[in-house]
Amino acid sequence: MQNNMKKLKELGHEIHRLEQISALLGWDQETYIPKGAVNDRAEQQSVIQGILHSKITNPELGKVLKDLGADLNSLNVNGNYSDADRALIKNTARIYSKNVKLPKSLVEREAKETSIAQAKWVEARKKSDFSLFSPHLDLILQLQREKADLLGYEDERYDALLDDYEPWMKTKEIVEVFSKFQGKLKSFIDRIVSSKTSIDDSFLYKGYDNEKQKAFGVEILNSMGYSFTRGRLDVSAHPFTTTIGYDDIRITTRYNKNNFKTGIFGIIHEGGHGLYELGFSEEIRGTILAEGTSMGIHESQSRLWENVIGRSKPFWKAFFPKLKAFFPEPLNGVSPDQFYRAVNIVKPSLIRVEADEVTYSMHIIIRFNLERKLLNGELSVDMLPDAWNREYGEYLGIEPENDAEGVLQDIHWSGGMIGYFPTYALGNLYAAQIYDTLKKEVKDLDSELEEGNLKVVLDWLRKHIHRYGSIYNASELCKKVTGETLNPDYFMNYLESKYKQVYDL
Amino acid sequence: MQNNMKKLKELGHEIHRLEQISALLGWDQETYIPKGAVNDRAEQQSVIQGILHSKITNPELGKVLKDLGADLNSLNVNGNYSDADRALIKNTARIYSKNVKLPKSLVEREAKETSIAQAKWVEARKKSDFSLFSPHLDLILQLQREKADLLGYEDERYDALLDDYEPWMKTKEIVEVFSKFQGKLKSFIDRIVSSKTSIDDSFLYKGYDNEKQKAFGVEILNSMGYSFTRGRLDVSAHPFTTTIGYDDIRITTRYNKNNFKTGIFGIIHEGGHGLYELGFSEEIRGTILAEGTSMGIHESQSRLWENVIGRSKPFWKAFFPKLKAFFPEPLNGVSPDQFYRAVNIVKPSLIRVEADEVTYSMHIIIRFNLERKLLNGELSVDMLPDAWNREYGEYLGIEPENDAEGVLQDIHWSGGMIGYFPTYALGNLYAAQIYDTLKKEVKDLDSELEEGNLKVVLDWLRKHIHRYGSIYNASELCKKVTGETLNPDYFMNYLESKYKQVYDL
Repeated sequence: MQNNMKKLKELGHEIHRLEQISALLGWDQETYIPKGAVNDRAEQQSVIQGILHSKITNPELGKVLKDLGADLNSLNVNGNYSDADRALIKNTARIYSKNVKLPKSLVEREAKETSIAQAKWVEARKKSDFSLFSPHLDLILQLQREKADLLGYEDERYDALLDDYEPWMKTKEIVEVFSKFQGKLKSFIDRIVSSKTSIDDSFLYKGYDNEKQKAFGVEILNSMGYSFTRGRLDVSAHPFTTTIGYDDIRITTRYNKNNFKTGIFGIIHEGGHGLYELGFSEEIRGTILAEGTSMGIHESQSRLWENVIGRSKPFWKAFFPKLKAFFPEPLNGVSPDQFYRAVNIVKPSLIRVEADEVTYSMHIIIRFNLERKLLNGELSVDMLPDAWNREYGEYLGIEPENDAEGVLQDIHWSGGMIGYFPTYALGNLYAAQIYDTLKKEVKDLDSELEEGNLKVVLDWLRKHIHRYGSIYNASELCKKVTGETLNPDYFMNYLESKYKQVYDL
Repeated sequence: MQNNMKKLKELGHEIHRLEQISALLGWDQETYIPKGAVNDRAEQQSVIQGILHSKITNPELGKVLKDLGADLNSLNVNGNYSDADRALIKNTARIYSKNVKLPKSLVEREAKETSIAQAKWVEARKKSDFSLFSPHLDLILQLQREKADLLGYEDERYDALLDDYEPWMKTKEIVEVFSKFQGKLKSFIDRIVSSKTSIDDSFLYKGYDNEKQKAFGVEILNSMGYSFTRGRLDVSAHPFTTTIGYDDIRITTRYNKNNFKTGIFGIIHEGGHGLYELGFSEEIRGTILAEGTSMGIHESQSRLWENVIGRSKPFWKAFFPKLKAFFPEPLNGVSPDQFYRAVNIVKPSLIRVEADEVTYSMHIIIRFNLERKLLNGELSVDMLPDAWNREYGEYLGIEPENDAEGVLQDIHWSGGMIGYFPTYALGNLYAAQIYDTLKKEVKDLDSELEEGNLKVVLDWLRKHIHRYGSIYNASELCKKVTGETLNPDYFMNYLESKYKQVYDL
């Protein structure tokens, strides 16, 4: 048994190291790679992915898992194990059994078709013409259905795909949560939209030197407890966090001197992701448990820092004077309260990545409902743009004028990523629920934040969430931390109490 | 046959891609890696090296090579092949047959012992105490002898090790070249040392802003024809060039605002390496022939650019005015001729990496003679510091005061790199011999250089050297380009004609 456990760790460790190598290839591609080397990089990734696939589907791994008591169908684990060891066996079994179900030919076909589809999507978005992309989306949906059928599912195909992003969660759970929540959110957005309060945020859009933004961002990261000994901050077209080693968690952002929000909130958001990855315990170091337990939980960490903390009044009480020292010009005459309101302005808009904290989740629910229908065949690709526009009209009160600012805005579907979107909204919901507990347990939280003492937040998150990595799945973790499973009421309550104040509702 | 050739290319291509991935891991380690991630990186390299070893010793590869007519002992190739195909079979057979001879246990022991020895070397150098390092050097020599015996050799063990750096060359060829050359070089150094000309280079050591140095370096690189679409320039502790993809050749340098020579000549040197790697023909792209054919030839490219071109009078005629525009202060009142002499000052010194173009090769010959004796057992490790100091006294007229500025100055031996040193001097010799032909074949070379038209040099090098990659070995290439095999007289003639003028001999 001990030998098998050792073997499992060794095989898993090699897989993890290869994933980190792949992460470095990816990081470099988004930051420093010479323009001409894009084909080199694609082939290098393909070599690593091929090796990874053969390591993950290594029959020796299957044998070790069975010998350790894993049922490769139900993914149940028999035996007397610690939580960590059981999770290690279970999570490895999950990855192994998924991968052995997918023939190499399908994986290669998917890689090829998504690569073509992404290029077509770029072109279609540029020309704002969905018809250029639609046949490819059709093909991708076909492939995803094929994949789902090979992977197997209980209720519906979407389950099989969702599992890549939100392991162990079922579609019906999301449906239940979102359907409960969508109506409430809509009413709340309507209340804000019809509020008479008008917020001036014009001072956020001029005169923010990029280098100074970076220096200010580094100051915030240091206060958050992000480690530059074990990490870096670079620039990329789209902000991201990537784990290149157990002591190598890098984040990126982008700066816009004419939009303060882009750079700094990008930094705080990615810093939140980074702190999760930096906080795994020694016990799971070097194993595949040293990963965020789901994308929803990961997103809860970034959004808790970006929105719940980073757009809070006490946070800016501490940091606004420092910010003003960096940018005396654009912030001349602006009060902390004005600034706080400005970074919390709510306005239904067409583009997801620019959405505020309140309307953001609505963009996600719309996408989730549409992609689920597409996969199930309830909605045809041809009808997608109309359906999209109708949903935006109904739930956000605005309609795209063209495909580029509508159905073509996101890359996900062109990459075959069906099941990814809901994790963004789950992140918001988990964040609010976790924050509710955090607030009860951390003494004088607001006063601490007002002092810029963000460390109290990190300490609590480390103790209750980060250190576990993937030992507990999202649902187990949520219950362990907050005492109940995911409940969107926490998010609604959070929004109401915050925005009542911001908008004098 | 065609299927086998295709298979050979596929297997080789995968190996090459993995080597590029390893190169990215290395580049990142020297440039942007967070301090804390050094262990992560070592383990990632070890995973990649393990996979590489299994791919290189894949029995399928051996079978393909045999089927293509390769004799895995003599490394002769039977069959009717183009030069490129024959070289591809032969070079792959060389790598395959070397690797299958080395048991995994030896490779792992070597990795472990050199890792310990390098740490001990760092400590010993710091404390300037050879006795801390000597037992480890003893062990490393033992391992290198064991390795040489496993690899096999004709004349002496050194042959087997030299082959890693200068493939197909025999030790006796180097002995012949160096012994002919060492005496002549010594007399020439003596003539310069006793010359009455004194050169003032004080203006090189103050006031060179790093950012401006970089901008000026980029200007030179652009003139040389280095491509930033297919490359980058970064900063690292020791300058290097690395090939991360067929279209991704990156160079580094280091800047010292109080030493002009460090940054810019580092850039020109690495630029020379980079241009070689950027210049392989389409025919060999994606194969293992897309590599420099030996380290000596590689070094000939860097030194031709750095010294023969980059420290020439016509070069500075073109670039001195540009340089002066960047640095009006420190160069105030300095004439092009003064500047030219200053960057060509000759002075016997103790530290190899700081040596000038004339004395540099002497440092190398001393090391070559010593490491060969160490390996053969003619010299014991205990006696090494004395022998080192004696050689420096005899050939450079100066003796180290301590081990740190003597026998402990270079990292190579602690890393098990026996056979590496001579390639540096071979580079100088090849460079002068190649330049002799280049000068005859490029019309009005000096006038072109005076115009800053460095492209004529690159075009010639591309046509006669770069495009071939490893199709021809160093000796074949030298003969093909210059009409004869390596002849140190070219280098002596080059030095004499240049330094007669610099030192008014």
